[in-house]
Amino acid sequence: MNKILIDAFGGDNSPSAVIEGTITALKERENFIAVLVGNPEIIAEELKIYTYDKERVEILSASEVITCEEEPTVAIRKKPDSSICVAIKELRTNDDAKAFVSAGSTGAVLVGATLKLGRILGVNRPALTTIMPTLIEGKNVVLLDAGANADCKAINLCQFAFMGSEYAKIKFGIENPKVGLLSNGAEDEKGNMLNHEVFPVLKEMKEINFIGNVEARDILVGEVDVIVTDGFSGNVAVKSIEGAVQFTLKLIKQGICSSVKSKIGGMLLKGTFKELREKVDHNKHGGAVLLGAGKLVVKAHGSSKASAFTASIKMAVDMAEAELTEKIKANISAISVGGEQ
Amino acid sequence: MNKILIDAFGGDNSPSAVIEGTITALKERENFIAVLVGNPEIIAEELKIYTYDKERVEILSASEVITCEEEPTVAIRKKPDSSICVAIKELRTNDDAKAFVSAGSTGAVLVGATLKLGRILGVNRPALTTIMPTLIEGKNVVLLDAGANADCKAINLCQFAFMGSEYAKIKFGIENPKVGLLSNGAEDEKGNMLNHEVFPVLKEMKEINFIGNVEARDILVGEVDVIVTDGFSGNVAVKSIEGAVQFTLKLIKQGICSSVKSKIGGMLLKGTFKELREKVDHNKHGGAVLLGAGKLVVKAHGSSKASAFTASIKMAVDMAEAELTEKIKANISAISVGGEQ
Repeated sequence: MNKILIDAFGGDNSPSAVIEGTITALKERENFIAVLVGNPEIIAEELKIYTYDKERVEILSASEVITCEEEPTVAIRKKPDSSICVAIKELRTNDDAKAFVSAGSTGAVLVGATLKLGRILGVNRPALTTIMPTLIEGKNVVLLDAGANADCKAINLCQFAFMGSEYAKIKFGIENPKVGLLSNGAEDEKGNMLNHEVFPVLKEMKEINFIGNVEARDILVGEVDVIVTDGFSGNVAVKSIEGAVQFTLKLIKQGICSSVKSKIGGMLLKGTFKELREKVDHNKHGGAVLLGAGKLVVKAHGSSKASAFTASIKMAVDMAEAELTEKIKANISAISVGGEQ
Repeated sequence: MNKILIDAFGGDNSPSAVIEGTITALKERENFIAVLVGNPEIIAEELKIYTYDKERVEILSASEVITCEEEPTVAIRKKPDSSICVAIKELRTNDDAKAFVSAGSTGAVLVGATLKLGRILGVNRPALTTIMPTLIEGKNVVLLDAGANADCKAINLCQFAFMGSEYAKIKFGIENPKVGLLSNGAEDEKGNMLNHEVFPVLKEMKEINFIGNVEARDILVGEVDVIVTDGFSGNVAVKSIEGAVQFTLKLIKQGICSSVKSKIGGMLLKGTFKELREKVDHNKHGGAVLLGAGKLVVKAHGSSKASAFTASIKMAVDMAEAELTEKIKANISAISVGGEQ
């Protein structure tokens, strides 16, 4: 059975939320074994409060924890017995181990995966995905790279397009995801030098359904399933959106608090605001996936609660089941830009 | 007296909104002459309905109009008697003409200014500003480049930082604007290659008050006055924010319409939503300024109404009065990156 490694000591609410989330995931997916990585005594103690199938939970001992304050490269080198390092080593060496889920330091997970797990043969740079809601009910969009690679070449973006498309097929259950290139305008001729180089290559790629440039204003409109960009612009887009939604909601909250009349209005709209906050809650999608690493790595948000861990673990199980890594491996070599692969 | 050239045939609501906005600006600012550029008969006819000081309004004849559908470079070449071309020519050759205000095609205004107006000696690339609201009441932030240069070098960003800072001093009436560099994280070591090159130079610049990196999530928080970035990332940030605010408001509107209870809530919060829409309305700030061109160019939004034209014209008058262009001219040569100016 596929084994999913779970960092029991990553994130603000670890280990209790991790373990609670794991127990729920075990009930909602039958086809995996959860391997909790970290201090075995504490994990065993936490597990005591739950009833679960003991054959489906294993503990992998790791004595150290990497915090978010530590410099990632240094931490990965100096803490070989940290939950992140131990999990990644197990992922590399155990064929049954299919994925690693962590809400720990993003930097440490990325550096650990890059240095110690390696990439799928043919993938130049792994990319981080992020999932955002759209105006179309029930439809989401995946953007990559959301921040793993601040500087990219054309070949990276083409590989991101392919990997993002394969991911969207499984994640959204669609056959032919529409892939757009983030640009400074929707017209074909818009873009910076990188975009100008990559646009015609994306257009020719048989492996994806490329529909052209997407303006940042239209990211949340819902007309595309996958948006491809470099990790710097991707980070700017994702965080600008996050900041703007927070900005809008804060101003509305201020307005609501400004008079008795508006307070009543706010109360009557409580359901609407709750729905909105749920819609923009990145936790519910199961976090970011590092696409292109040798095995699946799922990065849950640092503030993840139990339900977010459940979502992350379920995503890891589903992606492993659908053989996402194998699908990328099988086709990545077909993608090249001017001879460069 | 300073002359402000006004494109009477630019924007969706031209010429009537342009002329109405001009008349109001004449009342609110005493120290300029308005030069309306376009078909003289139509302008004269429109002017008939207003009472104004005839000595402060001139008409400059231009028989053609460049539309937003035309390819900018082609249009600028093929329509020398367009309002944009005639105005820019006048701006270049008439010492009294200090600024040009247009709500016409952004591309045509940019190309016209670049090709026919030239740059301030020492400025490598002019940059477009945009002004955004922040969470702090009454405080705004200027971001540049908002889209004029998709690819930038370190020297460009340093010049943008200086020009943006000079602009913010006048626009916001502050002495020592805080300048931040847009990056993929707030820590000093974050950034792409361009940022890594420019960060230490910005830190050493005596001409500005550089406070470090700003994450896109914090653009609207109000801790900085000027945010510097390349025109691609700048465009992504500004449009992501625009899209996210629209997204949030649309979802709230849907929620309001979903039941009688929420409809009443929406009615009680009408004032809050109106205030919010006003706060995020880019029209009220007077549009974007092209900083670094040989003379001042103000690009009003294509959908500008009369009040937006008034704001744009007043901004042009104030910037001319405060001698923004001259201030940039006097100090730009002091800025260099590794010997490159």
